[in-house]
Amino acid sequence: MSKSTKSSAIITLTTDFGSGSRYVAAMKGVILSINPVAQIVDVSHSVPHQDIRTGAIALAETTHWFPAETIHIAVVDPGVGGNRRIIYARMGSQHFIAPDNGLLSGVARISPPEKVICVTESSHWMNEVSPTFHGRDIMAPVAARLSLGLSPEELGETCEQLIELDWPTVQQVPNRIDGQVIEVDSFGNLITNITREMLHGVPASDIVLVRCEEHETQGIFATYSDQPPMTFMAHVGSTGRLELAIVDENASAMLGVRVGAPVCVSW
Amino acid sequence: MSKSTKSSAIITLTTDFGSGSRYVAAMKGVILSINPVAQIVDVSHSVPHQDIRTGAIALAETTHWFPAETIHIAVVDPGVGGNRRIIYARMGSQHFIAPDNGLLSGVARISPPEKVICVTESSHWMNEVSPTFHGRDIMAPVAARLSLGLSPEELGETCEQLIELDWPTVQQVPNRIDGQVIEVDSFGNLITNITREMLHGVPASDIVLVRCEEHETQGIFATYSDQPPMTFMAHVGSTGRLELAIVDENASAMLGVRVGAPVCVSW
Amino acid sequence: MSKSTKSSAIITLTTDFGSGSRYVAAMKGVILSINPVAQIVDVSHSVPHQDIRTGAIALAETTHWFPAETIHIAVVDPGVGGNRRIIYARMGSQHFIAPDNGLLSGVARISPPEKVICVTESSHWMNEVSPTFHGRDIMAPVAARLSLGLSPEELGETCEQLIELDWPTVQQVPNRIDGQVIEVDSFGNLITNITREMLHGVPASDIVLVRCEEHETQGIFATYSDQPPMTFMAHVGSTGRLELAIVDENASAMLGVRVGAPVCVSW
Repeated sequence: MSKSTKSSAIITLTTDFGSGSRYVAAMKGVILSINPVAQIVDVSHSVPHQDIRTGAIALAETTHWFPAETIHIAVVDPGVGGNRRIIYARMGSQHFIAPDNGLLSGVARISPPEKVICVTESSHWMNEVSPTFHGRDIMAPVAARLSLGLSPEELGETCEQLIELDWPTVQQVPNRIDGQVIEVDSFGNLITNITREMLHGVPASDIVLVRCEEHETQGIFATYSDQPPMTFMAHVGSTGRLELAIVDENASAMLGVRVGAPVCVSW
Repeated sequence: MSKSTKSSAIITLTTDFGSGSRYVAAMKGVILSINPVAQIVDVSHSVPHQDIRTGAIALAETTHWFPAETIHIAVVDPGVGGNRRIIYARMGSQHFIAPDNGLLSGVARISPPEKVICVTESSHWMNEVSPTFHGRDIMAPVAARLSLGLSPEELGETCEQLIELDWPTVQQVPNRIDGQVIEVDSFGNLITNITREMLHGVPASDIVLVRCEEHETQGIFATYSDQPPMTFMAHVGSTGRLELAIVDENASAMLGVRVGAPVCVSW
Repeated sequence: MSKSTKSSAIITLTTDFGSGSRYVAAMKGVILSINPVAQIVDVSHSVPHQDIRTGAIALAETTHWFPAETIHIAVVDPGVGGNRRIIYARMGSQHFIAPDNGLLSGVARISPPEKVICVTESSHWMNEVSPTFHGRDIMAPVAARLSLGLSPEELGETCEQLIELDWPTVQQVPNRIDGQVIEVDSFGNLITNITREMLHGVPASDIVLVRCEEHETQGIFATYSDQPPMTFMAHVGSTGRLELAIVDENASAMLGVRVGAPVCVSW
């Protein structure tokens, strides 16, 4: 690794600590104490507390936009201090460090791990490790040392696989696809687990019916402005998934629809 | 452009995506994938959803503090995917990239554009462009390439002018100025469109009366601590505009005053 | 100061401006206009408005994780523009710039100031200084100039000492320690002023009783997962202080306990 590569090492943080949490600042301090020129990027600290699934989706939808060799730390860790493992995984030419509780399983479904290592070699950690803040005392120093060129193999023994979450599945039968809302974004748009690929062959015309709970709309459009304001409408969103929106409004709030709501496309 | 200049290229982000939004993180990933040493600075992601006017004010009040050649990306974009243009503008020796929906018109009133270019040359964009996320797929890569030295002229054709918002005007008659509240800051201070220059010649004494809706105060002071706690008072704030505050309290919340409220200075 | 040291100068910001405040962005712009390669890190902008004590705790718990020579700016400044001083303090091999209103007294209790300077030399400030935003017009440019190698002695005259806050004390009598909740974190955990050192010699067994208002729990555990979900429990947290938590829940919200609540450990 050349010096200039090192100096631009990117370390991202995804946590459920909340915006403005001093726990995030402590992690940044630890990283910069070890590698003062690391470039730290916040992915999100607004993952709902202890909501591993939402954290896993945030990582899966976001991390692939970063350059190869980016180091991603993820901390949504209700089991901290217990017997859950901390793992390093290499996926999609990037590095991930997280508790092994399913948090990395969203990324792993897209980019199967090339390498998984159980982080056990304590010489790379802080001298004192709090049983309730492994993000600061284990994950941050390990990431900082990787950014300086430490080989992942030094972190511990290779292990078999990551813990998976039970992801909701999509049912496809002739003329019908059944999925669900898996994420609500900050605009209140309802993001489903029905992908563009699954919609291949579906007629993009008014004979397509999209239903979510008791709400119904016809057609799958390209963008919001294809429909008038206040219209409930379906389109394939920026994550490549079917999304339901109310033009210029918050669909989740107006319709009372949340994560887990069933979505059916039929034609 | 020398190497050291490049390595310190500053790119700022102003959006209505919300604090902790993974859409912001995706934009940062795209920028760093193209220029890994870009220095990304968040101006704000708390612009209220689709509130172009508030975004325009945030840009106008903030961007001029940054160094020359800073690249500012602004995304408050209700018309995304429709026929609104994306524009590059050079204003005040800085670079701006935004949808042409009025978002840049606050800056343009202060620093008239030296150059406006319609961003149409898709070779500088992501290979695939989502119709609902031009911030990530067009504006971020274009900004990153500018930070590496791409000439703005490569982005598309020069165009005539920016779209303007209809800004509330100030009426000045002898012994009286009528304006309005154009912004409420996070402390609840009421920031008006009456500038220090307009107040030139107004006696800064108790014979000046400042009225906002049914609330009234006498005198224009230098700072909060010139008046006791809980006092409704007027002063020229840090943006060079008349502000109304309740000392140590949230004036907007306590008085129920919002953006658009009329403000009258008389003497 | 060598060039490479300069390029990695770290400047942190702690304010009560609120997440996404354009006041923070203005400060960053000022810093980068003076030192374009400063590395700016947000400690927190979520200190409650004008809550000096919470700001002081955030600084005390966070800044020591950063490397030596880090420059910390802290702005919780209800007396801005009045006769409170702005001070520079060197503490724990780091630099601090803040209003002298007690905001630095949390750090000072841990790392007594090696040097305190009254920031009065206006040649290092912005040319125009708003009486209501010294963070932008005095503290930010001073910090940026320090990051470029300006000697703290150039900022003004040495002064005697910092203003202290009146910190709640802990009473220790045989078989009993009385303290209080001094902070509630974003998870709702109740952090007390009873330190690990004070608990030395306390039996970590079921005969220890921890009481907070009318709520009671037996034993002091190592981590959350030592107790079942929904259990009210005590442990020594990541700050080295006794904390009270409800496993997997928000103790502050569920119990209605806030900062200032008395906490008693007896055995």
